[in-house]
Amino acid sequence: MTLFGKDPRLLVRQAEPFNGGPGPDALLSSFVTPNELFFVRNHGAVPEVDPAAWRLTVDGLVENPLSLSLADLQRFPRRSAAATLQCAGNRRMEMMAVAPIPNELPWGTEAISNAEWSGVCLRDVLAAAGPRAGALHAAFTGLDETERHGHRFHFGGSIPLEKAMRPEVLLADTMNGAPLPAVHGAPARVVVPGYIGARSVKWISRITLQEEPSDNYFQAKAYRLFPASTGADNVDWEAGMMLGESPVNAVTCSPLEGDRLPAGPVTARGWAVAGGGRRVARVDVSADGGKSWKTAELEAVGDGWTWSFWRAVIDLAPGEHEILCRAFDSAAQTQPDHPAQVWNFKGYANNAWHRVRVVCG
Amino acid sequence: MTLFGKDPRLLVRQAEPFNGGPGPDALLSSFVTPNELFFVRNHGAVPEVDPAAWRLTVDGLVENPLSLSLADLQRFPRRSAAATLQCAGNRRMEMMAVAPIPNELPWGTEAISNAEWSGVCLRDVLAAAGPRAGALHAAFTGLDETERHGHRFHFGGSIPLEKAMRPEVLLADTMNGAPLPAVHGAPARVVVPGYIGARSVKWISRITLQEEPSDNYFQAKAYRLFPASTGADNVDWEAGMMLGESPVNAVTCSPLEGDRLPAGPVTARGWAVAGGGRRVARVDVSADGGKSWKTAELEAVGDGWTWSFWRAVIDLAPGEHEILCRAFDSAAQTQPDHPAQVWNFKGYANNAWHRVRVVCG
Repeated sequence: MTLFGKDPRLLVRQAEPFNGGPGPDALLSSFVTPNELFFVRNHGAVPEVDPAAWRLTVDGLVENPLSLSLADLQRFPRRSAAATLQCAGNRRMEMMAVAPIPNELPWGTEAISNAEWSGVCLRDVLAAAGPRAGALHAAFTGLDETERHGHRFHFGGSIPLEKAMRPEVLLADTMNGAPLPAVHGAPARVVVPGYIGARSVKWISRITLQEEPSDNYFQAKAYRLFPASTGADNVDWEAGMMLGESPVNAVTCSPLEGDRLPAGPVTARGWAVAGGGRRVARVDVSADGGKSWKTAELEAVGDGWTWSFWRAVIDLAPGEHEILCRAFDSAAQTQPDHPAQVWNFKGYANNAWHRVRVVCG
Repeated sequence: MTLFGKDPRLLVRQAEPFNGGPGPDALLSSFVTPNELFFVRNHGAVPEVDPAAWRLTVDGLVENPLSLSLADLQRFPRRSAAATLQCAGNRRMEMMAVAPIPNELPWGTEAISNAEWSGVCLRDVLAAAGPRAGALHAAFTGLDETERHGHRFHFGGSIPLEKAMRPEVLLADTMNGAPLPAVHGAPARVVVPGYIGARSVKWISRITLQEEPSDNYFQAKAYRLFPASTGADNVDWEAGMMLGESPVNAVTCSPLEGDRLPAGPVTARGWAVAGGGRRVARVDVSADGGKSWKTAELEAVGDGWTWSFWRAVIDLAPGEHEILCRAFDSAAQTQPDHPAQVWNFKGYANNAWHRVRVVCG
């Protein structure tokens, strides 16, 4: 075991703060990612939280502001649900090959994992506080601290109140049946299925109902989507779209980039995921640059909040090949062909066709 | 005025049953499409319905089956909402240019319109009937009759009960402030914002709560999405995805295909729409085949249930140009580049980049 009890197979993208995720083979080894393999996205040091002293404040546009101990929180009805979390920056490295993206983590395809969470429904806690008229967003603040542009502050973000009141949104205190690990937000974190991982705030300490989205840096500036013509030098932060639901995405985990394989039938395997509660309807694989596609078999079918695993057998002649994959979601939406089409200077939401080059024979 | 009180500017794609919609210039003339311009998608003759004799049956997995007169229905609380409806076959003609799609309507870009609907919330009616455990879908049957494969039957379809219980789904009896026109489903129709038009069943006569989706031909076989390798000769109907929410889409309405324009600044205008309550976050225009994109201005911003209108000024040198447009929705999803990438033998859900060729100078 290494830092934070993580599996040594984690690809570590940054040591401090600690950021890493499971490589393609490790990732595909289990539909429910073991805690020691689950990817980690930290914006600051892991805070040391004394569970006995921890309080969750619920305030803002509520009838009854709350200050809950862990025992208070755990008195709400319990709920368990599987949910796949994915960093908005997953697959950024492919965008970096199009044009530089400085000062951001060079994620390959490993900033995604799937766990069974349990805890209480956020909406039950909000109902106890009593949302007041005018409340449109639930803003979350964590206990982790970070620094940007000379200011030191806590990580935070928000989701629309309509989403916060949906049954799938949890305040989780366990992960795959174990107490929530420190690096994943102990004693309690938000889990917002179907949204970019950044909204699933760890080490949750405050939930504020308010009229506007959070003014935290990670909601107001970072995690916004800009056109390719926008850069750090000309950015108008207000003009970018605040990221929420994730777009449909798919990745080939096997074979690996650069693999040498016998010519003939090759089994490609990987994951696909849709956002916002949409399901993965279909995964296609192509070995001719997208001129023709073969429909993959969904070997583990997720619901609207989890990924699916897929496999397809394709026949490859001797020589070099590029294996492409793409998914369709239940809203008949599919993926753009190349990262250049979705490139943005922060490197978010890359859901272009995934490409793996192999040599056969 | 012509047939069914429609504007003579309607592009009529089929005379019987009557199918047509407003050409690009007519469509762009008003954010709320006047009734006489609103597109018409019929699968059979317009039924003659006596409003005094009309009844709406609500049955299936309900505690209290209902048989409502129009007056009964109109006693529920009233609600008005704008909603854009779009046929799943809109832009099929561009797919037909990739490979033939026999026996389907050759829609250009005109199978879409936007109206202000009023009526009652479907969920209020369903609540009065009392959904029973096990009810997962609301199946709709209209009074219009059609024939397929030698069988004569009523048009129908279904939506998940979770969607049926959302506030935006209406049983509408007025359209843009006027009584619902006969050709649009008088005396009452379903309006399912964010879904393909086929689920907004006109001349509604029966709503059945059930465990499974409707077994009507238009739910069980038609309006399913298949891969390009599937054709009428090898189709396994069960294998296709039942269409529900629409994918993000955008079209240039001005200039028109083939227009001759002075070189210099050209103003492109059009619509964009997202499905499932997602919003249009951005529209891009390209005149260099998608190598670079200019962000359009949203001149009329819709909510999650309506389209948006956009405009962009692009500088065109003398010569031939292709103007491309594409949109991003609030889930960071965008469109595929070419209809070949989404081609399917029924010609549904074409949301490839829209292309308009013009000559300048």
